[in-house]
Amino acid sequence: MVEKRKPIAVKDAIEKVLGFSRVGQIEHVALQESYGRFLAVDLVADHAVPPFDRSPYDGFAIRSIDTISASADLPVEFEVIDEIGAGYVSDHLLGERQAIRIMTGAQIPNGCDAVVMLELTKVSKRNDKVFMSIKRPFKKGDNISFAGEDTLKGSTLVKKGAYITPGIVALLATFGYDTVPVVYKPRIGIIATGSELLDVRETLVPGKIRNSNSFMIEAQCRRGGAKPIYFGKLMDNLDECFLAVQNALRSVDFLITTGGVSVGDYDYLPEIYKRLGANVLFNKVAMRPGSVTTVAEVNGKLLFGLSGNPSACYVGFELFVRPIVRTFLHNERPHLQKIKAVLGKDFLKPNPFTRFVRGQLTFSDGKISVSPVGLDKSNVVTSLADANVFIVLPGGSRGYQMGDMVDVLLIEDQTGSETSWAESFK
Amino acid sequence: MVEKRKPIAVKDAIEKVLGFSRVGQIEHVALQESYGRFLAVDLVADHAVPPFDRSPYDGFAIRSIDTISASADLPVEFEVIDEIGAGYVSDHLLGERQAIRIMTGAQIPNGCDAVVMLELTKVSKRNDKVFMSIKRPFKKGDNISFAGEDTLKGSTLVKKGAYITPGIVALLATFGYDTVPVVYKPRIGIIATGSELLDVRETLVPGKIRNSNSFMIEAQCRRGGAKPIYFGKLMDNLDECFLAVQNALRSVDFLITTGGVSVGDYDYLPEIYKRLGANVLFNKVAMRPGSVTTVAEVNGKLLFGLSGNPSACYVGFELFVRPIVRTFLHNERPHLQKIKAVLGKDFLKPNPFTRFVRGQLTFSDGKISVSPVGLDKSNVVTSLADANVFIVLPGGSRGYQMGDMVDVLLIEDQTGSETSWAESFK
Repeated sequence: MVEKRKPIAVKDAIEKVLGFSRVGQIEHVALQESYGRFLAVDLVADHAVPPFDRSPYDGFAIRSIDTISASADLPVEFEVIDEIGAGYVSDHLLGERQAIRIMTGAQIPNGCDAVVMLELTKVSKRNDKVFMSIKRPFKKGDNISFAGEDTLKGSTLVKKGAYITPGIVALLATFGYDTVPVVYKPRIGIIATGSELLDVRETLVPGKIRNSNSFMIEAQCRRGGAKPIYFGKLMDNLDECFLAVQNALRSVDFLITTGGVSVGDYDYLPEIYKRLGANVLFNKVAMRPGSVTTVAEVNGKLLFGLSGNPSACYVGFELFVRPIVRTFLHNERPHLQKIKAVLGKDFLKPNPFTRFVRGQLTFSDGKISVSPVGLDKSNVVTSLADANVFIVLPGGSRGYQMGDMVDVLLIEDQTGSETSWAESFK
Repeated sequence: MVEKRKPIAVKDAIEKVLGFSRVGQIEHVALQESYGRFLAVDLVADHAVPPFDRSPYDGFAIRSIDTISASADLPVEFEVIDEIGAGYVSDHLLGERQAIRIMTGAQIPNGCDAVVMLELTKVSKRNDKVFMSIKRPFKKGDNISFAGEDTLKGSTLVKKGAYITPGIVALLATFGYDTVPVVYKPRIGIIATGSELLDVRETLVPGKIRNSNSFMIEAQCRRGGAKPIYFGKLMDNLDECFLAVQNALRSVDFLITTGGVSVGDYDYLPEIYKRLGANVLFNKVAMRPGSVTTVAEVNGKLLFGLSGNPSACYVGFELFVRPIVRTFLHNERPHLQKIKAVLGKDFLKPNPFTRFVRGQLTFSDGKISVSPVGLDKSNVVTSLADANVFIVLPGGSRGYQMGDMVDVLLIEDQTGSETSWAESFK
């Protein structure tokens, strides 16, 4: 007899999975390896930026009081008493009508309260002395970058869990992190099951297809911030699959299997969960594709049973595994970012279950539109290549027409969302 | 005397740089290492997908003609003569009122023209034979995934130069690429100059700051698809800098220096270009920040002289280096993607030159809005951490108000644009 499974709402499924989330430990990597990792501590400024008053331009450091009378007709002349390059400090104290030649980035000398840009000055020499004259007055503070104007000492600049961008790398360098505390990447084991699967290098034979899911998931793991560990592909053989799952579970933080979760005679995952004594969180989700997606838990460790169909497998990863990975990485925005877009093509099929349609987002004149790419069948692999979003069509809705406003989930985006996009979905 | 430099329009500067673009060679990497690389050849389907007619469901393969009379009152019964798992092929030819048990993904047996899902059937046993009955008619082709319905043999699935996403990895696996021809990453040399620069691990001392630009650029190189090679930081010493530049140029595809491009007494890059016999494409651009950005060329090899100010340096990389990297990678969309957004905050400063303001993009109800992040001064490093776009305010424009529509460039996006965003800018 066919087992009757009760579908659970997508929102509830995600909640159940996140109930078993774990967070990763800290590891230290070289600054140059930190791009794309997730910060494990708050980045706090241990000094002000700039650390001292400095000149943003090449020019002359002066006392503004000396410039009050300066005009085109009556320029004011200054004696140039020193020259400081970036990285050097002058030990002169500026006196009346004295100036110090200063380079971009150099520290403002004592007694000076304004900088005049080089191009606004005229330089001359007399009796081995250098003079500089200007034709207009300057105010106190003109052209000075003041200590702390960018950042005060003690400010939290970047929060724990942030995805490290090139801009954050620059901040880490500024604050002396030659090694960076990042969150250890969760190790995700991957096992592909199915007697129809050939290795990638094998020649096609009747009835068989090449294994593509495990490689796709490895890339999804990398995009999500995890470290994939491939444990190989297996024939539909209960004992062999059971041992492989049991063994892989020991050395990973999460385990993904593909295939074998349906109700067919060769779908052994349900039996494997039984043998492991696993707690099955759900084995049917009210969604298309991927309704057979199953998630179970053994001693707090999650097993994701994704569909063997490529598109269903892809969706299953992004909906259930990705937020678990981002939570592990201490990221405050673990959910996919949901935005609204205008449907660019009809999608007339009704949606008994919440449907995730592979789509491509385009921008035009401040408007966002989205169109489905390729066929929307769960076994279609080619449309995955062009998709950068999922169009989410809620369960119970009729078909949609061009011009309708729909929800889309951004799958190539690092921003994410604090709250689950699924809050408003069944 | 201060050298007078003539600013060039941003659009012209980008064009001049791209005039010296080069394209990279092919290298082969394992499929598992291909995510995030750029494809070096068109990906053509060498077989149809699916490669054979197959069942998308668990169920029974039947002849639709036998089901014409089936109804709830008068079910039609079939004898089950074989069972095929995915990966196996039945050698039976289906006769009248015969059925074959078939699993998801298995090849449709000869003589069959429809599949009935398991849950719509009733199975029974009599005299060691298995029977199955159904209560409604099926049409020819019902529940069959036909060979080639996803992809025909010979179709170009992904074009050369594409950024390899998880979806493309799946396609590569499907078509047997256990190694993938990708474009060799351009090697970009990086030299930081400036006597004010400390190493990241050094303690701050008066007048000095830590080198952050080279690490930031390394991360920007990685994001862009290039391989950064750091040649260290140098004091403002002409001979030393010249030798370092000359030496680095020999072993890289492109070279970036930071600092030393202005008109100050310690800005040695102009003199270094002279000694190298380099052709200076431009040494002043009508933009803020980064007006001192200089690009030169020696024997067809580009030297990017970026500003020493972090934000100017960042902008200089994205505007000039990134499209050169993407062109090298054969990518058809080498330019930053430009979209329209609504300004979320006033930006009242006038823009004598085209201004690139670091901003953060947000989506709400199908509208795109953008706000400047932090201070907009070229020496401000902290705002880089939060920026995911540049707001582009054209030269010659007055200040902008909240609600105005502005152009933004997406800097965290892999999609890019075929044509230069700068086409419409001076």
